[in-house]
Amino acid sequence: MARWEPDSRSRLEQAAFALYAERGFDHTTVAEIAKRAGLTERTFFRHFADKREVLFAGSGALQDLLASTVVDAPEGLAPIDAVAAAIEAAGAQLEERRERARQRQAVIAANAELRERELIKLASLASALAEALRRRGVSDPAASLTAEAGIAIFRIAVERWVDETNERSLPELIRESLEQLRAVTAGH
Amino acid sequence: MARWEPDSRSRLEQAAFALYAERGFDHTTVAEIAKRAGLTERTFFRHFADKREVLFAGSGALQDLLASTVVDAPEGLAPIDAVAAAIEAAGAQLEERRERARQRQAVIAANAELRERELIKLASLASALAEALRRRGVSDPAASLTAEAGIAIFRIAVERWVDETNERSLPELIRESLEQLRAVTAGH
Repeated sequence: MARWEPDSRSRLEQAAFALYAERGFDHTTVAEIAKRAGLTERTFFRHFADKREVLFAGSGALQDLLASTVVDAPEGLAPIDAVAAAIEAAGAQLEERRERARQRQAVIAANAELRERELIKLASLASALAEALRRRGVSDPAASLTAEAGIAIFRIAVERWVDETNERSLPELIRESLEQLRAVTAGH
Repeated sequence: MARWEPDSRSRLEQAAFALYAERGFDHTTVAEIAKRAGLTERTFFRHFADKREVLFAGSGALQDLLASTVVDAPEGLAPIDAVAAAIEAAGAQLEERRERARQRQAVIAANAELRERELIKLASLASALAEALRRRGVSDPAASLTAEAGIAIFRIAVERWVDETNERSLPELIRESLEQLRAVTAGH
């Protein structure tokens, strides 16, 4: 029996992110992550299916946050504003963990397989947003279009935030990207 | 030496689509496709890397069409209208091969791995559109946002077109989806 290890999950995450940054995702093994965290491989596999899941473990919570924010938004709020509230809430959560979120983006950007996995995640988030809009009574194709627009705004705001040297917050960049999408679709 | 086989590529495509529809993508082999087409496996592999590539062989041409339509659009045309012209041109081309395009969508919708491959294709198309907009002098994030909006419109219009019982054309559905995106982003 392994000893009880307080906070082993976050130690594994921290070790994994450090190693991915130092030597790249492909050249990091689960054994090395566990060793760096001072834990066993067996403990790693109690928390994560594989080394990729360390990067995507938050997807379920993110999806729940987006969907519940849309479902709970005040009645009468326009669909795009309900979606904006949801992606701003998600942005505020990432903003609290700015350094970790930026490390994550850098690891993903450097690896084709991870970029594909991220695309799949974003498509799932768009589906969850569309489904939440339908529960608000928004019909298709408006529900799908609004959800896709929201995810496009989110993705592009995150890309800017990662690169950003001016330290604007992610929620600010999300609001700005929404205004820009409004301007471009209006044909300005 | 194999005999010269006129139009072997299109015979292989036709055989592949028929078999994917009959028994599913996963349960079709290259040997069966070649046999149905009356050709050898060797001939199949001269045309396609594997059975998946039969479904994605047109991606390069589609990407070129989108990019060149944006680059060649009249000066002074708003970015969203240049993108709309590009996706309508792509839609007109699919419309000419409606039955085949619908079969393709049905095969992809039924298979998780193919849906992922399709997501990657759509992300590449969005990147190509954004790059073409930058060549028109559109800066980021407007270029990326407009490109993402264009691909979202295209994808949702294709989904409706595949399901559609009223036989509206894909270019019509693309124009309608653009108007709907304008309405939802404006908050209506």
